[in-house]
Amino acid sequence: MKFSAAVRLFAVSITAITMTAWIAHAQEKPLVLASQGSFFVGGEMKKVPARGGGAQEDITINQMYVQFQVPANGGPHTPVVMVHGCCLSSKTWETTPDGRMGWNEYFVRKGRPVYLADQSSRARSGFDGSKINAVKAGTLPPSELPNVLTASHQTAWSVFRFGPTFGTAFPDGQFPIQAVDELYKQMIPDLNALLPNPNPTWTNMAALAKKLNGAILMGHSESGFFPEQAALIDPSGVKGIISIEMPCVMDFAKDKLDVLAKIPTLVMFGDHLGDVKGGIANWMNSYEGCEKFVQQVNAAGGDAEMMYLPKLGVKGNSHMLMQDKNNLQLADMIMSWIDKHVDAKKGARRQSSN
Amino acid sequence: MKFSAAVRLFAVSITAITMTAWIAHAQEKPLVLASQGSFFVGGEMKKVPARGGGAQEDITINQMYVQFQVPANGGPHTPVVMVHGCCLSSKTWETTPDGRMGWNEYFVRKGRPVYLADQSSRARSGFDGSKINAVKAGTLPPSELPNVLTASHQTAWSVFRFGPTFGTAFPDGQFPIQAVDELYKQMIPDLNALLPNPNPTWTNMAALAKKLNGAILMGHSESGFFPEQAALIDPSGVKGIISIEMPCVMDFAKDKLDVLAKIPTLVMFGDHLGDVKGGIANWMNSYEGCEKFVQQVNAAGGDAEMMYLPKLGVKGNSHMLMQDKNNLQLADMIMSWIDKHVDAKKGARRQSSN
Repeated sequence: MKFSAAVRLFAVSITAITMTAWIAHAQEKPLVLASQGSFFVGGEMKKVPARGGGAQEDITINQMYVQFQVPANGGPHTPVVMVHGCCLSSKTWETTPDGRMGWNEYFVRKGRPVYLADQSSRARSGFDGSKINAVKAGTLPPSELPNVLTASHQTAWSVFRFGPTFGTAFPDGQFPIQAVDELYKQMIPDLNALLPNPNPTWTNMAALAKKLNGAILMGHSESGFFPEQAALIDPSGVKGIISIEMPCVMDFAKDKLDVLAKIPTLVMFGDHLGDVKGGIANWMNSYEGCEKFVQQVNAAGGDAEMMYLPKLGVKGNSHMLMQDKNNLQLADMIMSWIDKHVDAKKGARRQSSN
Repeated sequence: MKFSAAVRLFAVSITAITMTAWIAHAQEKPLVLASQGSFFVGGEMKKVPARGGGAQEDITINQMYVQFQVPANGGPHTPVVMVHGCCLSSKTWETTPDGRMGWNEYFVRKGRPVYLADQSSRARSGFDGSKINAVKAGTLPPSELPNVLTASHQTAWSVFRFGPTFGTAFPDGQFPIQAVDELYKQMIPDLNALLPNPNPTWTNMAALAKKLNGAILMGHSESGFFPEQAALIDPSGVKGIISIEMPCVMDFAKDKLDVLAKIPTLVMFGDHLGDVKGGIANWMNSYEGCEKFVQQVNAAGGDAEMMYLPKLGVKGNSHMLMQDKNNLQLADMIMSWIDKHVDAKKGARRQSSN
């Protein structure tokens, strides 16, 4: 996929950006799909008070909405499940804020079946609103309300590492900062505070991987470590793990490390981890913890790799690296890793079982 | 598109249903897209208290998320914007609960660019959670909480007309009732109670139609009359209106009727309108009101048509007719109407302007 420099330069206003998206898309070769669709994984029934009184009624909660595309040229590639982070939806992986192609379509164009999941309690997966109604009805105190987590523009700028302070971008920053207002529209309320433990999204991701007869689970930020948590619930479908920019759990007990050590794992971090002043995230800390996690998985006999982008000569990436200007370069790095660490091994297993 | 009878009969459990979806999709010809992507329409900034105190910060609210696909074989057809109803998301138009093709893909396969919009305050469009946080913080009383509208299984059965009483289906019902649990997973909290007046979805739909240089707006149930409301805000992009099963506004003032009379309008109602016992909807009443609305538009010189399906010999349709077993037959009826009342006129206008 190539965008002309002229098209990039044209992207100066939001309207122009949107138009650019359509022009850019129109310049692509047609996208040929064997199939597409959507479905739910998981979900359970819950009794709630009926409207207007009377007997209790049933609602369904904790389900996970999944939207998929399978390319017509899909050969032996393992499906990839992408799960978004805090205060975001699967929009994360689609058309970038400045109108370029997202990872979802790019992976499909490269022959991978792609499954986008809205976390349980977010976006098209819905959430359990019964506590809010109970507080309104006076049967629960206001302290029982969930904290509705909505990242402000200021929080996003700092946590997503667009620049050292709000309104100032890093000179070498890869995020398409002229379109940041379009990113702000992606930021929606996060009601994970309502979820039980373990998080149903973990269970649903594991179930999805199994249903697909094997999948690579990819998480980002809030969901960055969800692939590992899913594998610890049921590793049978998890053929690979891609964890992007999150705090890692360290010092797992041996039995858990042994489970994770059987799954090829890629961890990716961008640039400027320690260059933001203030804010609630400490990305350098997260990176260092994940370095230890990678070492621990490998010490247990695993195949884990840390891609710390600036160390590889790839500079300026923000936390939203799937939307950064070099997003397709990063996608290529990930797919090369998949080919070598997941798909080649699958081929090798196939050959050896002949 | 054809599904074999064998595949249909195979759909006996939810797992089997999902597998059937994939088998059925795999039997389709490849879907060839000129482009696809997603973007937002509208949105405005709002000041909210910063987390942990301090200066106020900004969030974006009232934006509308839109996901689109443009077919490679898209000729002169006008784009179609589909907007879902209460307690639902754009999932409404996608793969049906029993795993058949939804209207979104079928329209694309028939050469129409399709735009799916999540209503402002729903699903991937997000909502304004600041009132909930203010009640939790004690700065607003619980009475200020929005009513979180979640349709229970019992409400859905009755309002969507699956049968006369909960658990009993109409013998000739078109809804794939064996998969009703999958529909329940689509039902998510509706926070339209938080929205200002006029509803930003109306404004955003009008803006989207204009941005597309002309579109047909389709609404269903809660959003059934949104196309008309959008046209009354700005008719310039609204080339056609499709209103499915909703209460109609009647007795508009002449200036408003004159606006609506310039736009070809199709209204569609299914079967069993008066056959559900109890429940909160009165569909026969809604139908009769819409009959009057159609007459009033036509009396003002308009081109409005009521498709009351049982009168046309199409029996057993539920309120969720885009998911009913004969959903593609209904889609064909709608596209025939579009070709004749919207696209043919566009061609005629084009010819006459040559």
